[in-house]
Amino acid sequence: MPENKQIRNVAIVGTGVIGASWAALYLARNLNVVATDPAPNAETNLRQYIDNAWKDLTVIGLSPNASRDRLKFTPDMKQAVSNADLVQENGPERQDFKIKLFADMDAATPPDSIIASSSSGLTMSVMQSACKHPERCVIGHPFNPPHLIPLVEVVAGEKTSPQTVQRAIAFYASIGKKPIHVRKEVVGHVANRLQAALYREIVYLIEQGVLDVADSDAAVSWGPGLRWGVMGPNLLFHLGGGQGGIKHFMEHLSGPLSTWWKDLGKITDFSPEVKQTIIDGVLKEAGNHSIEELERERDSMLLELLDMRSKGEKAAKAA
Amino acid sequence: MPENKQIRNVAIVGTGVIGASWAALYLARNLNVVATDPAPNAETNLRQYIDNAWKDLTVIGLSPNASRDRLKFTPDMKQAVSNADLVQENGPERQDFKIKLFADMDAATPPDSIIASSSSGLTMSVMQSACKHPERCVIGHPFNPPHLIPLVEVVAGEKTSPQTVQRAIAFYASIGKKPIHVRKEVVGHVANRLQAALYREIVYLIEQGVLDVADSDAAVSWGPGLRWGVMGPNLLFHLGGGQGGIKHFMEHLSGPLSTWWKDLGKITDFSPEVKQTIIDGVLKEAGNHSIEELERERDSMLLELLDMRSKGEKAAKAA
Repeated sequence: MPENKQIRNVAIVGTGVIGASWAALYLARNLNVVATDPAPNAETNLRQYIDNAWKDLTVIGLSPNASRDRLKFTPDMKQAVSNADLVQENGPERQDFKIKLFADMDAATPPDSIIASSSSGLTMSVMQSACKHPERCVIGHPFNPPHLIPLVEVVAGEKTSPQTVQRAIAFYASIGKKPIHVRKEVVGHVANRLQAALYREIVYLIEQGVLDVADSDAAVSWGPGLRWGVMGPNLLFHLGGGQGGIKHFMEHLSGPLSTWWKDLGKITDFSPEVKQTIIDGVLKEAGNHSIEELERERDSMLLELLDMRSKGEKAAKAA
Repeated sequence: MPENKQIRNVAIVGTGVIGASWAALYLARNLNVVATDPAPNAETNLRQYIDNAWKDLTVIGLSPNASRDRLKFTPDMKQAVSNADLVQENGPERQDFKIKLFADMDAATPPDSIIASSSSGLTMSVMQSACKHPERCVIGHPFNPPHLIPLVEVVAGEKTSPQTVQRAIAFYASIGKKPIHVRKEVVGHVANRLQAALYREIVYLIEQGVLDVADSDAAVSWGPGLRWGVMGPNLLFHLGGGQGGIKHFMEHLSGPLSTWWKDLGKITDFSPEVKQTIIDGVLKEAGNHSIEELERERDSMLLELLDMRSKGEKAAKAA
């Protein structure tokens, strides 16, 4: 397999919201996209999603010559992947279905091409188990929506080659994503686990009557969340350590953290009561703002934040 | 106690970095500040900190007539608090010391004034235990640095009056902070617990060899952290629920979250090995960027993000 086979042709298998968002992103990066989905209105819905996402992608910045006209659609999966350098799979999260889908894609995709899965619920070791060329199958899990949020989690299955992992990481990086290498298969990959860990403590504190819902949102988004929007936790603790940096932090300031670890909530399920409390609290917090308004608010702030981050990154590299 | 005694005169007890940052903020909000600290170079250090912070506070926007000249310093604590409408205490986190300090402040501060503590490690029930007027003592815990990060956690002790809690919340809100009401005394209050919950899973995943340090930072700051910088987790799940909002989310999409809860790391301490791995990883990630450079990068991005958030909030209120 040529290590540096250039990726120009992408196939999107499954065009629900995740697949549609990937398609929009790949088109904006001037790649040729063939999409496939068996659902009756799939093509119409896909083109509509892309038209909506295109506005945001234009704000972020389109690659030279990028065009929505470079999208082809076919309900025939085999035809869709037949000329693909990379397949981005976004099918239903059912194990039997997925194993068969991977076997079928594997048979129809050139063997030196990558087949990447957006799956969050299954491992690649399972999905690739019936493939003839499992070495080119890899998880490329986005954080929703893929056309806005840069993170992509790259995870190998047992039979995935290290080369495929490196090629996938290089490809995602080349189109402006922020790929990370998840080195072992763990339930939920990484970002979902981190989100779950934070939310577990929020649910626990709401359940214990320590916080109401709106205050728990403020506790994140007007507190530590502001920092996490600009820098990762380890690097932040490096700065929290003063002149001694992370070494000082680990030696002298990490104690309270592990004290708090011992006291964190241990809940493993949502009680019906806490679900209702959160539903009521969120509806009160949202007030008369519709979901569409709140989405616009979130996305316009996200776009500004991404613009600021990418400028910051360029400045840091130039320094 | 008059419910709406206006707060014009603030005393800062303890002028380490937290106290100095509070002093800068209160001066920027055009309050009269008297600061006190027994350390030899306290006044010089304090004025230097304020001069540095003043640049950022000018970017955020000074209140009309705000001036650093409105700062007075005295090494005499009793004199410092004698005319205070609100005392912001930032002393060392030792129980015996703090109980005595609170008794002394209580005796010297007008009884209808608020005494707020920045303590993160002790409860108000303990600190107020030797006060004659414990009902006006309350936790007002900032997230560092107080002059930049809006969150303030307000927590009552057993003897704190509900009125004091409401007055403290109203005061912090009136100067542009985002106070939340922590309704029960819990170890670490809230934001530190949430930070600890997230970081615990990061440390666990690094320890398990799932992630390297730089990738764990990217997993937050290019993924869910971007969203937490603009909105709280509950409201984000409201948008994650599509047209059905938080109700749909809780009924149909919350399942995976609790599945991940069951698999999260359960570590209660940092192993020496993981400390070293994190130290090495952070130093590699920081590369040739000094702590000062990284701090400037963080703070300039934080200032932009805060500006964007405050504009977003005004727009949402006007809508």
